[in-house]
Amino acid sequence: MDLRELIERLPDGTVLTDPDLLASYRQDRALDPDAGTALAVVRARTTEDVVTTLRWAGAHGVPVVPRGAGSGLSGGSTALDGGIVLSTERMRDITVDPVTRTAVVQPGLFNAEVKRAVAEQGLWYPPDPSSFEFCSIGGNAATNAGGLCCVKYGVTTDYVLGMEVVLADGTVVRLGGPRLKDSAGLSLTKLFVGSEGTLGIITELTLRLLPAQPPQSTVVASFATLTAATSAILAITGALRPSMLEFMDSVAINAVEDELRMGLDRNAAGLLVARSDAPGEFAAREAQLMLEACEKAGATEVFSTDDAEEGEAFTVARRFAIPAVEKLGPLLLEDVGVPLPRLGDLVTGVAAIAARNDVLVSVIAHAGDGNTHPLIVHDPTDADNTARAHKAFGEIMDLAIELGGTITGEHGVGRLKKDWLPNQLGPEVMDLTRRIKDALDPHGILNPGSIL
Amino acid sequence: MDLRELIERLPDGTVLTDPDLLASYRQDRALDPDAGTALAVVRARTTEDVVTTLRWAGAHGVPVVPRGAGSGLSGGSTALDGGIVLSTERMRDITVDPVTRTAVVQPGLFNAEVKRAVAEQGLWYPPDPSSFEFCSIGGNAATNAGGLCCVKYGVTTDYVLGMEVVLADGTVVRLGGPRLKDSAGLSLTKLFVGSEGTLGIITELTLRLLPAQPPQSTVVASFATLTAATSAILAITGALRPSMLEFMDSVAINAVEDELRMGLDRNAAGLLVARSDAPGEFAAREAQLMLEACEKAGATEVFSTDDAEEGEAFTVARRFAIPAVEKLGPLLLEDVGVPLPRLGDLVTGVAAIAARNDVLVSVIAHAGDGNTHPLIVHDPTDADNTARAHKAFGEIMDLAIELGGTITGEHGVGRLKKDWLPNQLGPEVMDLTRRIKDALDPHGILNPGSIL
Repeated sequence: MDLRELIERLPDGTVLTDPDLLASYRQDRALDPDAGTALAVVRARTTEDVVTTLRWAGAHGVPVVPRGAGSGLSGGSTALDGGIVLSTERMRDITVDPVTRTAVVQPGLFNAEVKRAVAEQGLWYPPDPSSFEFCSIGGNAATNAGGLCCVKYGVTTDYVLGMEVVLADGTVVRLGGPRLKDSAGLSLTKLFVGSEGTLGIITELTLRLLPAQPPQSTVVASFATLTAATSAILAITGALRPSMLEFMDSVAINAVEDELRMGLDRNAAGLLVARSDAPGEFAAREAQLMLEACEKAGATEVFSTDDAEEGEAFTVARRFAIPAVEKLGPLLLEDVGVPLPRLGDLVTGVAAIAARNDVLVSVIAHAGDGNTHPLIVHDPTDADNTARAHKAFGEIMDLAIELGGTITGEHGVGRLKKDWLPNQLGPEVMDLTRRIKDALDPHGILNPGSIL
Repeated sequence: MDLRELIERLPDGTVLTDPDLLASYRQDRALDPDAGTALAVVRARTTEDVVTTLRWAGAHGVPVVPRGAGSGLSGGSTALDGGIVLSTERMRDITVDPVTRTAVVQPGLFNAEVKRAVAEQGLWYPPDPSSFEFCSIGGNAATNAGGLCCVKYGVTTDYVLGMEVVLADGTVVRLGGPRLKDSAGLSLTKLFVGSEGTLGIITELTLRLLPAQPPQSTVVASFATLTAATSAILAITGALRPSMLEFMDSVAINAVEDELRMGLDRNAAGLLVARSDAPGEFAAREAQLMLEACEKAGATEVFSTDDAEEGEAFTVARRFAIPAVEKLGPLLLEDVGVPLPRLGDLVTGVAAIAARNDVLVSVIAHAGDGNTHPLIVHDPTDADNTARAHKAFGEIMDLAIELGGTITGEHGVGRLKKDWLPNQLGPEVMDLTRRIKDALDPHGILNPGSIL
């Protein structure tokens, strides 16, 4: 493919073709072994750059894989041989409007950078994936990313009021805007959120913001059995609105404790970290109620603190679980969710799958919304172990579907989970999905092989 | 058209063909003068009835207009000559799950019935259109309805986690489910919310619920000028999260006072009713801050109360504004919204439009989210007055668009506003809308003439 036309139409330095650079854009964090190598990486600075790229790609039938920060965990940003990787990493503008409590952001900013910019105006952008320091806000919108605060504050789609998106043929459309209420026409903004770059490329987002989060009180509780831990979770969510309700199993507890030495109970089967951000002294009151719920459910150790720094240390510990468990070996990272009453069934089912396949699986969870991350440790140098790990990976998704859940709560389907999607959604919904995809991207150039 | 086949396939009593009954299903509350008369009204009891109707309609090319409670204000449920009205009024099941804090409801229940059923379990379904006593939950989803609580709690789409929907060809699909987080596939649930029956017919909704709302404190403030009132609104929304922030202009104040005699300030240019539902004594503290913001903005009278009944009386007064103003004459009911900083421009602009066209326009507003309801009083027996009223109706939408706003915040486009939709969205978004419509309803049998 002759790239000269594309290179000429874009500003200098926009198109990368150096093989070493291309190699670094082949995969996202899912490390899809089937990743190809792109013809070129376009590092757009403007919407116009995106338009130019899509028009060129459309004219030549070249697939385009959008990429934010490359932190995706489902292979939604996996380079294709003969395709273009369209990176939004250099689209980094942000404007905050404290009166309407909105921010207009370009997709390349990290989630943490958005949080910091709005915090300067006393505002808060809630969604907080564990990767918030290095995931892009555009990728967050593309996957409808979640995080730890979702149990009280919802997910990315709840904060996207509008967007600019470039369609497959290079048409630029503006959807929604800085209005909490807007019933004019179809809810297209919401359709693009979570579409993983298969319907268009988001070049700007209008985000809804909240006032700064009040200080949080924190509860930490250890349980000798998983049953006790899950019954504490249900007792808390049935009565209160925690601002965080996280779970780590014994493997994760020990892996974190090995690294951070903060005195976590190494003998516990499960640990809960719960927080309340109710105003003023209500945070402490809510924390006390959560602590009592944990005790009543049979917690072996409970601890609570109103100290922000101490509370944050436990949140950091929970966030650190993935890198800590990763020290045991490379991970296949699951993201399955179930309706809350089935959480216990999911956790025990995962343990059975791990035993049956003789692989180590650590379960951490955004427990309050039933979204778990079973971490399957495997050894890529051992073909048999790897095969068993992949088998467990699939069986965990089968289990989630069987329990009325989802194969992905917040990471997206990407390429890694697309074979399981029809089992969750059924043929009619897949057909509906295909009809929308074909209507918006008739030549199939946008992230082909993701979702569908 | 021979209806015998349809009548035979459906349970006895499902199909109405009596002309008097058909007449009562011709219009919704928008009273579209161009309404036709349906061939028949199908009062479905089950999803299967909806499937049967759509299959029959598809086979015969008969348009189908879905109808909830017929309380729509944009003519989205206007009967068509030769068409079917598909009423969901008899689909009234509800199941509440307090553990996952969700309810599965059929579309025919009134919003108030949903609220009452979940309140029995100590739960709360927030969206609260002023018509909540007589609007259906299915219609709420179809229009992405709002209400008074939206300033803090968002709109219908924020509470719809899943649905069952029957597509144009009679295919039944289940989307989403009782999971706060679900990134599996396109966000189809959100696409159907607000689609006004043009993409499918919603036969079941899975709604997210919150714990019961805490008791509210209430502030009432009168202002001598609209400028003072709007600056109080911005001061409040910029610093706090009121659970309600409503506005009435002098026409509305006097119309309400004529009916309710509650001592509202008849000389005021504007009245704000604001509430806080922060926990415990924080509600009173937040109310005090709102009261001070009103005073600082130049309120002529302020009043606050922690008494639930007294506070509710002012909320009822605000809700009563539409029927009260209606006593002055039939209304053309607007629903325009703007980004908050433009609210003052909108209110003064509406006054200029009223003066220029020599019609009486009263403005009430969900002020905290910039969503206003200019009520255009007109005299249908006076052709000239009616023409001027309709001219003002259009000019108000033009103004909202000019101010970066929307022609409808919460009522939907229906038939009454569709001529203005392209001016707001632009040709590219209209084309995108058309592509999705054609992909999902290729023969155009679902509510033709609404939105598009």
